[in-house]
Amino acid sequence: MISAGEALELVIQAARPGALRLVPLAEACGLCLAEDVSADRDYPPFARATMDGFAVRLADAGRSVAVVGEIPAGCVFGGDLGHGRCLEISTGAVCPPAAEAVVPKEHVARHADRVLLPAKIEMGQNIAPQGSECRQGRRVLAAGDVVTPLAVAVLASFGVLSIRVVPRPSVGIITTGAELIPPGRQPSPGKIRDANGPMLLALASAMQLERPVHLAAADRLETIVATLQRMADRDLVLLSGGVSVGAHDMVPRALTEYGAEIVFHKVKQKPGKPLLLARKDRQLLFGLPGNPLACHLGFQRYVAAAIRGMTGQTAAAAPFYGELAQAAGSKGERTHFVPARAEYAPALRTAWRLDVLPTVSSADIFNSCRANCYVEVPPGNDGLAAGQTAAFTWFIPSTTS
Amino acid sequence: MISAGEALELVIQAARPGALRLVPLAEACGLCLAEDVSADRDYPPFARATMDGFAVRLADAGRSVAVVGEIPAGCVFGGDLGHGRCLEISTGAVCPPAAEAVVPKEHVARHADRVLLPAKIEMGQNIAPQGSECRQGRRVLAAGDVVTPLAVAVLASFGVLSIRVVPRPSVGIITTGAELIPPGRQPSPGKIRDANGPMLLALASAMQLERPVHLAAADRLETIVATLQRMADRDLVLLSGGVSVGAHDMVPRALTEYGAEIVFHKVKQKPGKPLLLARKDRQLLFGLPGNPLACHLGFQRYVAAAIRGMTGQTAAAAPFYGELAQAAGSKGERTHFVPARAEYAPALRTAWRLDVLPTVSSADIFNSCRANCYVEVPPGNDGLAAGQTAAFTWFIPSTTS
Repeated sequence: MISAGEALELVIQAARPGALRLVPLAEACGLCLAEDVSADRDYPPFARATMDGFAVRLADAGRSVAVVGEIPAGCVFGGDLGHGRCLEISTGAVCPPAAEAVVPKEHVARHADRVLLPAKIEMGQNIAPQGSECRQGRRVLAAGDVVTPLAVAVLASFGVLSIRVVPRPSVGIITTGAELIPPGRQPSPGKIRDANGPMLLALASAMQLERPVHLAAADRLETIVATLQRMADRDLVLLSGGVSVGAHDMVPRALTEYGAEIVFHKVKQKPGKPLLLARKDRQLLFGLPGNPLACHLGFQRYVAAAIRGMTGQTAAAAPFYGELAQAAGSKGERTHFVPARAEYAPALRTAWRLDVLPTVSSADIFNSCRANCYVEVPPGNDGLAAGQTAAFTWFIPSTTS
Repeated sequence: MISAGEALELVIQAARPGALRLVPLAEACGLCLAEDVSADRDYPPFARATMDGFAVRLADAGRSVAVVGEIPAGCVFGGDLGHGRCLEISTGAVCPPAAEAVVPKEHVARHADRVLLPAKIEMGQNIAPQGSECRQGRRVLAAGDVVTPLAVAVLASFGVLSIRVVPRPSVGIITTGAELIPPGRQPSPGKIRDANGPMLLALASAMQLERPVHLAAADRLETIVATLQRMADRDLVLLSGGVSVGAHDMVPRALTEYGAEIVFHKVKQKPGKPLLLARKDRQLLFGLPGNPLACHLGFQRYVAAAIRGMTGQTAAAAPFYGELAQAAGSKGERTHFVPARAEYAPALRTAWRLDVLPTVSSADIFNSCRANCYVEVPPGNDGLAAGQTAAFTWFIPSTTS
C-alpha cells in the first residue's frame, strides 16, 4: 500500500493538460493562458490628460491666458496651442503636442474665456505620456498565467476577442451502492439516500468542470462497465463506492474490463483507504470510497489536484500551517486527514487557528460539515497535541473570503 | 470627503439581503441558508457494518462458527443469529439485532461454510450504532451557514430537495465615456477600447451574480438616465466613468434624475477618489471611476462588500497582514491601495510576503495584472518601508488555491 504522499505524486504525474482551446474572452476568466500576450500599441496610445483642467505651456505660468477651445475625451484637437493660449481638457482626452502640462480646474481662476494660471507649473504635470504605462510589443501576460479580471481588462484593451487557453476537464460521475436511493425517495429499511452524487456534482460545479453528468449504477459488473462506456468521452470520471475488496466491490474489476489501467489502489490514509486511480488513454478515472467523508477527502486531496494539473495549474495545493486548538489523534501506519475549521488569527505564530471537528466515522458528514480544511496528522501513534503546529489544506471551494 | 473606512462602513450599512428564495439543492452551493436544517431521522438509521466481514456474537470468540447467510448492503436479514452462527456482512449493511461485533474478513480463517473467529473480539467492534453520527431532530445546519459541498451531502442525506437561501443579486453594468469603443473595433485617434465592461462582466461572473447585462451609454444625461431605467429591475447597478466633476461627468446628475439618493460621492483614497454610492428603494448603484485600475479597486473593496452583504454573508473582508518586500509610498490625506502579489511564506512572522506592483497611474492595469491583493497604505507622507507589516485584502476571485 502506498503512502498519501506517494498517491498524490502519482495523481500529479498522471494529470496532463488537455487539448488547448480558443475561447471568447468572456469565458477565459479563471483559465490558464496557452499563449503569450503582447501590447498591440503603446498605452496610453497618446499623451493623455489625467485630470480635468487646462492644457498649457510652461512659459505661461502665472499669467492670464485665453481659453481657445475644448478637448473632450475621445476627440483630437486640430488647431495650434500658441503662447498665451490654453485649451480646456477632460480626463482621458488627447493632449495636443504643444501642451506641456495640464493644470487642474481647481488651481485656476476663470473669468469668462480667460483663466489665471498658477505661478508654478511642473513640466508634464497631469499628462501620462504615450507608452508610459506599457510599450507596444511588451509581453504583458505569459502562457501559464491564470486569466484574472484584471487580465481580462488588459486583453480587452489590446482588442483580444478570443484567446487560447487550457480548458477545464469534462466530468462524469458514477455512484454505486445497492443501499442507495435517490434523495427524493423515502428510504425503506436498510436503505439510505445518495449523498455522494449531489456532493460530487456540487464540487464539479464549484470547479466549473464541463458537461457534468451523474448516473447511478447498480453493483453489477456489466452495469458499471456499460456506464463507464457511456462516459468514454469525458476527460475525468469519478466513481463512488464499490472500490474496496468485498464480494460486491465491482469497481476495480469493472475498470479493468473497461480497458483502464489501474495506477494505484489503496492508500495509507484515513479516511479513504480504498482510493483508486486508473487511466485509459487520456482519460483519468478515480474510484472514490462510498463513505461520504472519505469520498469528500478523495475529491479534495486527489481529484482537485488532478483538475488543477489538467487545467495547466500547479497541481499540488501547498500546505498551510496552523496552530491546533485541540489535539488530533492518529493510530498506525496511516496518515489521518481530520476535518477542521481554520480561522485567521494574526496574533498566532502561524497566523491560523485550527479547530478540529472530530468525526465518528468515514460516513460522518454531520459533525464535519462546518469544516473548511483538512488537517494532516502524520502516521504513528503520537498524534498532535493542542498547541502544536499542523499542516492543513483548504477545501474547494474556498469559504474564507 | 469621507475616508476609505467610512465609505466601506456606509456600503455595509446599505447592503441588505434581498428576498429569500427556495432553490433546488443543486443551485444552493455557495449561498447562505435562510433556514435551519435538522436531521430527519437517526444517522446511521440502523446499526451499520463499517467493514466487510462477519457479524458475530461475543461468546463465539475463538470458536469455529457456521456462516448461515449473507447480508449485502441495502438488505435486511430476517432470520436469527444464534450462538455458533455468523453472517457474512458488507460495509454499509444492516447488522442484525443479535450481532455484537463485525469481525473483518482478514481476521478469520474460512473453511467452506465455517469460519474460525479470533480469540479476542471487542463489543461493538466495526458497528456504527443507530444514531451514533447524528440523532434525529438535531440541528445540523443553521440559517446563515454557507452551503458547502459537505452541506449538500448532508441535505441530500436528509432528503432535502430544495432549500430556502439568500440569492445572489442581479446586476446591470453601464459603461460611459466618449473615448471608448468596443474591444472588437480598431481605435481611431483619441479612442481606446473599453476595458471596464469586460472586466466588470468577468467579476460579475466570478461572483455568480444573476442576469448580468452590459450596456454602453454615451456621455449624455438623457441616455444615461434611460439606460438606468432599463436596469430598474436589477438589484445592483455598476456604472463606470463620468463620476468626477468635469462638464462631461453626467453620472451623479443622471442618478439624481433617475430618482436615486446619493449616499456618498468621493472618498479619500488613491486610486478611485471619485467613487459614488447611491440607492433607490432596494437597488444599490455604484458610480465607479473610469480608469480601469480605480474601477477594479472600487469593485474589489466596495462592490464585493455590498454583494457579500446582499447575500447574507459578513460584508467586510477581514484584512490579512503581510510583510512588505518593497516599500509602498503614500502622500497626503488619502489611503493608498497598492496592487500587490501575496505569497504564503510560513517562515515570516506574518506568514505572507507582499510583493508590491507599483503602477504608473489609475489607468495602469499592465503593471498590476499579476496582483492578487491590495495593500493598504495609511494616509500621511510616511508610507511603509520594506520589511514593515501591512494590511492587505484578497482579490476576488481568489487565485491562491
